Amino acid sequence: MPEPDGLSSYRERLEMSFKPETTHRTGAWIAGVRGDIAATLMVGTWARAAGLVSDAGLTTAMPPLSDLSLVRPDNIRFGGLDIGGARLAETAASLYKRSRTIDRDLLKAMSDRLVETEKDVLDLPEMAWDSGGKSESDSARLKDVISVVRTHIRAFKERHRLERVIVVNLTSAQPVPASPLPGDTLGDLEQAIEDNRRDLITSSICYAYAALSESCPYVNFTPNEETKCPGIVELAELRRIPFCGDDGKTGETLIKTALAHMFAYRNLQVLSWEGVNLLGNNDGKTLQQPRNRETKLRHKENVLENILGYQPHAGVTINYVPSLGDWKTAWDLIHFRGFLDVPMTMQFTWQGCDSILAAPLVLDLIRLADFAHRKGEYGPMRQVAAFFKDPQGVEEMDLHRQYGLLLDYAARHLTRSSEKQGTA
Amino acid sequence: MPEPDGLSSYRERLEMSFKPETTHRTGAWIAGVRGDIAATLMVGTWARAAGLVSDAGLTTAMPPLSDLSLVRPDNIRFGGLDIGGARLAETAASLYKRSRTIDRDLLKAMSDRLVETEKDVLDLPEMAWDSGGKSESDSARLKDVISVVRTHIRAFKERHRLERVIVVNLTSAQPVPASPLPGDTLGDLEQAIEDNRRDLITSSICYAYAALSESCPYVNFTPNEETKCPGIVELAELRRIPFCGDDGKTGETLIKTALAHMFAYRNLQVLSWEGVNLLGNNDGKTLQQPRNRETKLRHKENVLENILGYQPHAGVTINYVPSLGDWKTAWDLIHFRGFLDVPMTMQFTWQGCDSILAAPLVLDLIRLADFAHRKGEYGPMRQVAAFFKDPQGVEEMDLHRQYGLLLDYAARHLTRSSEKQGTA
Amino acid sequence: MPEPDGLSSYRERLEMSFKPETTHRTGAWIAGVRGDIAATLMVGTWARAAGLVSDAGLTTAMPPLSDLSLVRPDNIRFGGLDIGGARLAETAASLYKRSRTIDRDLLKAMSDRLVETEKDVLDLPEMAWDSGGKSESDSARLKDVISVVRTHIRAFKERHRLERVIVVNLTSAQPVPASPLPGDTLGDLEQAIEDNRRDLITSSICYAYAALSESCPYVNFTPNEETKCPGIVELAELRRIPFCGDDGKTGETLIKTALAHMFAYRNLQVLSWEGVNLLGNNDGKTLQQPRNRETKLRHKENVLENILGYQPHAGVTINYVPSLGDWKTAWDLIHFRGFLDVPMTMQFTWQGCDSILAAPLVLDLIRLADFAHRKGEYGPMRQVAAFFKDPQGVEEMDLHRQYGLLLDYAARHLTRSSEKQGTA
Amino acid sequence: MPEPDGLSSYRERLEMSFKPETTHRTGAWIAGVRGDIAATLMVGTWARAAGLVSDAGLTTAMPPLSDLSLVRPDNIRFGGLDIGGARLAETAASLYKRSRTIDRDLLKAMSDRLVETEKDVLDLPEMAWDSGGKSESDSARLKDVISVVRTHIRAFKERHRLERVIVVNLTSAQPVPASPLPGDTLGDLEQAIEDNRRDLITSSICYAYAALSESCPYVNFTPNEETKCPGIVELAELRRIPFCGDDGKTGETLIKTALAHMFAYRNLQVLSWEGVNLLGNNDGKTLQQPRNRETKLRHKENVLENILGYQPHAGVTINYVPSLGDWKTAWDLIHFRGFLDVPMTMQFTWQGCDSILAAPLVLDLIRLADFAHRKGEYGPMRQVAAFFKDPQGVEEMDLHRQYGLLLDYAARHLTRSSEKQGTA
Repeated sequence: MPEPDGLSSYRERLEMSFKPETTHRTGAWIAGVRGDIAATLMVGTWARAAGLVSDAGLTTAMPPLSDLSLVRPDNIRFGGLDIGGARLAETAASLYKRSRTIDRDLLKAMSDRLVETEKDVLDLPEMAWDSGGKSESDSARLKDVISVVRTHIRAFKERHRLERVIVVNLTSAQPVPASPLPGDTLGDLEQAIEDNRRDLITSSICYAYAALSESCPYVNFTPNEETKCPGIVELAELRRIPFCGDDGKTGETLIKTALAHMFAYRNLQVLSWEGVNLLGNNDGKTLQQPRNRETKLRHKENVLENILGYQPHAGVTINYVPSLGDWKTAWDLIHFRGFLDVPMTMQFTWQGCDSILAAPLVLDLIRLADFAHRKGEYGPMRQVAAFFKDPQGVEEMDLHRQYGLLLDYAARHLTRSSEKQGTA
Repeated sequence: MPEPDGLSSYRERLEMSFKPETTHRTGAWIAGVRGDIAATLMVGTWARAAGLVSDAGLTTAMPPLSDLSLVRPDNIRFGGLDIGGARLAETAASLYKRSRTIDRDLLKAMSDRLVETEKDVLDLPEMAWDSGGKSESDSARLKDVISVVRTHIRAFKERHRLERVIVVNLTSAQPVPASPLPGDTLGDLEQAIEDNRRDLITSSICYAYAALSESCPYVNFTPNEETKCPGIVELAELRRIPFCGDDGKTGETLIKTALAHMFAYRNLQVLSWEGVNLLGNNDGKTLQQPRNRETKLRHKENVLENILGYQPHAGVTINYVPSLGDWKTAWDLIHFRGFLDVPMTMQFTWQGCDSILAAPLVLDLIRLADFAHRKGEYGPMRQVAAFFKDPQGVEEMDLHRQYGLLLDYAARHLTRSSEKQGTA
Repeated sequence: MPEPDGLSSYRERLEMSFKPETTHRTGAWIAGVRGDIAATLMVGTWARAAGLVSDAGLTTAMPPLSDLSLVRPDNIRFGGLDIGGARLAETAASLYKRSRTIDRDLLKAMSDRLVETEKDVLDLPEMAWDSGGKSESDSARLKDVISVVRTHIRAFKERHRLERVIVVNLTSAQPVPASPLPGDTLGDLEQAIEDNRRDLITSSICYAYAALSESCPYVNFTPNEETKCPGIVELAELRRIPFCGDDGKTGETLIKTALAHMFAYRNLQVLSWEGVNLLGNNDGKTLQQPRNRETKLRHKENVLENILGYQPHAGVTINYVPSLGDWKTAWDLIHFRGFLDVPMTMQFTWQGCDSILAAPLVLDLIRLADFAHRKGEYGPMRQVAAFFKDPQGVEEMDLHRQYGLLLDYAARHLTRSSEKQGTA
Repeated sequence: MPEPDGLSSYRERLEMSFKPETTHRTGAWIAGVRGDIAATLMVGTWARAAGLVSDAGLTTAMPPLSDLSLVRPDNIRFGGLDIGGARLAETAASLYKRSRTIDRDLLKAMSDRLVETEKDVLDLPEMAWDSGGKSESDSARLKDVISVVRTHIRAFKERHRLERVIVVNLTSAQPVPASPLPGDTLGDLEQAIEDNRRDLITSSICYAYAALSESCPYVNFTPNEETKCPGIVELAELRRIPFCGDDGKTGETLIKTALAHMFAYRNLQVLSWEGVNLLGNNDGKTLQQPRNRETKLRHKENVLENILGYQPHAGVTINYVPSLGDWKTAWDLIHFRGFLDVPMTMQFTWQGCDSILAAPLVLDLIRLADFAHRKGEYGPMRQVAAFFKDPQGVEEMDLHRQYGLLLDYAARHLTRSSEKQGTA
């Protein structure tokens, strides 16, 4: 049977691209490393390095960002932790099966590497705070968890002789703690850890704390807001480490922040902007829990007021529809008023594959966090605001202006580097 | 029967707003003055001046543009020409009847003013070039037409003691002349007028020529491209008159130019962007003619390449659906490729009322052309690129960047004016 | 100002159509008589009788139903009850204002008749069971309420010398009683009324009880299920009165029951059918209450299993979006599996005006209930299953088969009537 | 790497299902045997026989049709003709590559059988009438073509000891001959063949003529209308052979004929029904040719008048969008008028895979044509009207009533067969 072009030689081309002598300078240590996004990230990074797929989806593959000396994707080594769950190769296979996104042949060619990556995965038992009901004695103490994570990150770095490890949070939405930390210094945070206050401290805060303690740049792709915890921010300043978040902007909110200004420019007054999100992946299952959903919705709801200057009626519905798998389908109705107060409507339907949209953003963020750390930058990475629903350190919600921050950042570095060359 | 609030007192409030002593400083002399857009423009301008409707739809009603000393809408006097057709009051009534956009009570309150405006309307016989087949002897000579138009504009200005008249082209899409003018100087244009070359010179070129000869700023809201004619551009330079065009951006193209960058930023590769426009007004009927449609489509098709940097498969279909009246319905399918080359889709439906969307833009443009002329600016008005499908003098197609030009323009004038105040 | 054709002569044509000598043979006594549907019903019935609008929306205006000797719409006299609220003329005016459905001139011409109809409206104080928290002493006893309603119906019939009164329930969705009646005979129902068990007996049950006690045919257009109460069914049998319900089928469910069979015929396996309803009228506001929504959703959810033979994942979301007014917008996503188990999708958007869709159905039902009663038929009216989400006495949910029941019914009556003529 | 369940054992399960001793009683001889639909048909038929996929998409797999003694799908042997083009296995592979519909592992397991089937494929040179310009001498004479086809069908039948061969036309839409045959008898048809009138006789007519001459039941799945040719109908009567057509109903028209009655039942007057079809397969490419498109559109346009009883404004647009591959995307806007003449809208988007929708219908039709022939039935198969856009011998266009014809047919045969068993 004839092969679709090139499929047969996938394995060979992959092997060629993985030269043993390649220095894996940068590590990406991922919390939630066996999930859909992480599996897609790895398969996609390797496939692209081997020239099997295009650059599509990667912002950092385009000028001017591609002119910065970002880490090469094939120089990134993956590891991380997960709470049980399917092996990486199973996750990848089920992505094909459920959503037919990743090519079967590609998956087969990758299977050895996925299996090998498992060696760098820490299996963490599920902790009481994630599952609710368990009694305290069931689970490890917070400081033990943090210690285990730090040790694993350190070992990962040493084992592969990595120059730098970026820690990325790709876990699911968690319930917001019922009450905030009592006090907002790093000392207060460390005291609460010491006191094992699992009612106040989420696992995401633990990952951020462990990462920064190990001087690793930190990327929060989840809505869990650990990067808003004052103790975490203080720790990042203290260690002089860059970090970014919250909540990767991949679907409906991406469009909202790209489109809302159109109404503002024309003084078309938005009466209602009603959004419905249907999704069938684990994320969707988690978001059926009202408290987890609340965490998510928070970021989706405040973007319109920021861009329009007033708050229209804006409902956001998230429904779990298992058969859709990873294919998130969003429908939005925008009801607006024009000249002579005549009401009109726009509606859109977005049919995107969640992990396919998210994974390249994560790769972009790893490369940009690595770059920022190398350049000695620290604190919130304002330049990547366009990647997040609720960007740390940036008020602006409009996608176009946010993207301008990234272009300015690139321009500054490119000027500096050409000036250096000029003086040299 | 109880009245919806305020409707009963419309006439009174209107009468109060039209103070006889008001100086109508600026005239808007419109080619196509009895069409839907012009009728909506007048009713809307008066209703807003009387406080009966909100500012919705007007860009110039918002800061920073509202901080410029633009002409007050109630200081604009309307007039123009049309080729037969229904009276203005009939056009307005039929807008209500066909599309239920303008409130009946509002229309009734306006009827006297619409009737009065007819006094400033020049009834021009349809000329051979617009209708195709007629023999030359059937119609007036080009230079006679231009002369009649100039005389009418001059009389309009004098009758109402206007400081300045803005000429606006709101006629339908015309077939592009089969061949261009032989030569590209003002002299060549004038020779062709002298030779009565109706195969080369459209009525729109005549209107532009007449306007500029009378030193009137010129706004081309149609796709007819008279503002691209080199002789016209030369005349504007010579007379030091500002002008702008082409083709008001009100619906599908507006969204395209607002949204396409989202795909570019994320390196989501657009494979196909297929647009379908259904409309039932006169514009729709005219666009059933293949040669008129061609004029229109030209501007709709080249925006994507400009923004994306490559040309995706991009079809634009325009179908005439009489029952929709003025409610233009556009459906677009965007097929794009993300990470791992996975194809995904977005689609949107836009249900907007054509004249309700277009009229406030025309009012904005009249105010801005008046301002530019007052300030001694001339040539293509780059600051209003965001209002046009194919803006004169600006390559940029992205709505957000185009709007940036307008903000910069406003900022320049506001700074200057505050500096003046500072020195005073 | 020229008038849209015929508008100016509305009042005259209306006056001609209301001949004083006309015998109003049939009364329509409506619970919820000041609501949007009732107001639309009256205006529409009168406008059609005067020839001002077409027959659109009326099933009974088409053959074969128009061949039955149904009561003429202009022979129907309206009355009923409501719980405070705006006057009828205000309701009608606000329909125009909020939703621009009914023509202003039409409304003005109708205003006298709407005001006159108020004379036949019973103002009932809101009762504790509808509003929840009030203590028992705040409100009238059930048997007093029923007595007042019966007296009013009787007076209405006598005042206008009506041959027959049809009672129609057009009130909002009510919470389902927490527990069912203890016992399922008419005796049990009457005992509960005597005991004033407002925790078990809804206002809708009272209206049905009063209607049937007065030998009036009963139409339940609401989801309130009083026609499922065994005591009510027994009473209808005892009095030999026809009745029908529940829950008028006007939007999303109408389409579902028209379309679902397409998937069944082709063995296209529906994986998920997700429906979202946005609405901004009183009905929408009421349905924000979880217990009222539950009543409504019950009927929307079971139609698919009946038609497909299996239950797909089927979510129904109802969101209140005030700016939409009466324009209910429904979006449905149907995810289905075809040959080789390939998943495919269909989606639809329905933009319908709720009361414009519901009112003609109510007029159809009044005419058919009147006819059935005249012919001596009683019990559940199976022939009108196509009008309801949850038809009494019929299991079939498919619209096409339900409509077949109506055609068969008409055919039976037409055959019988032509046979009679044959024998005469 | 773990296998998605069962994929690894595909080949084994396939081999088990193809027992050498199986009698292939029925042949399916397909014109256009190397196209997408035919390849999907074969892969799907074999995969289902091996239990690798569900019955989805197959009408004949459901009661009551599954209770008829239809030929088992694994007892069908495939063959046919094509005009050059890719080999079957290549077609199948490219279906995966372009549209990701058929599972890669499934395709691999099928490759041997697809290659083997090529032995039963007649390679016919493209004939002048299909390509237009060639001179007469370039191509074979009509009677030679018919003779070659007949010989091939006969050999196919004998080689595999088939009881019966069904001939199926799955070629593309052809231009309608400029003028009809002069005369409408079989004799006239045969004279035109003798005279080699390629201006009057399409290749589809040749296939039908050859099939019926060989006493093979004939299924026309194309819009080419050879089954309307009077000489062909006469030949079918003469030979007592069943046939059916025209134009498989798979997408937009399917929905139209399922949904239009909803508007009719409610007297909702359809003002406009505007349909847009985007497709990227060979069919789409062919339909870019205006004359081929005309053939197709003819059947799409007349269904509404038949169902509604009047002709609304009904445009059908077909655009070729290569990136969509086999994923046909249709968008329809339905503009209709309800009570009080208020206009409302419904729109739907259909995203279906063309060959996945068509192939199971072809399998259903092969089984039903085989059954009809076995039972001695002949002439137009009215029972399969629901499968066609323009069903032979049936005026009814409503899907539900058409499906009723199939149910009645099944019921008649099942009663007869149970009666026989009763008497036995």
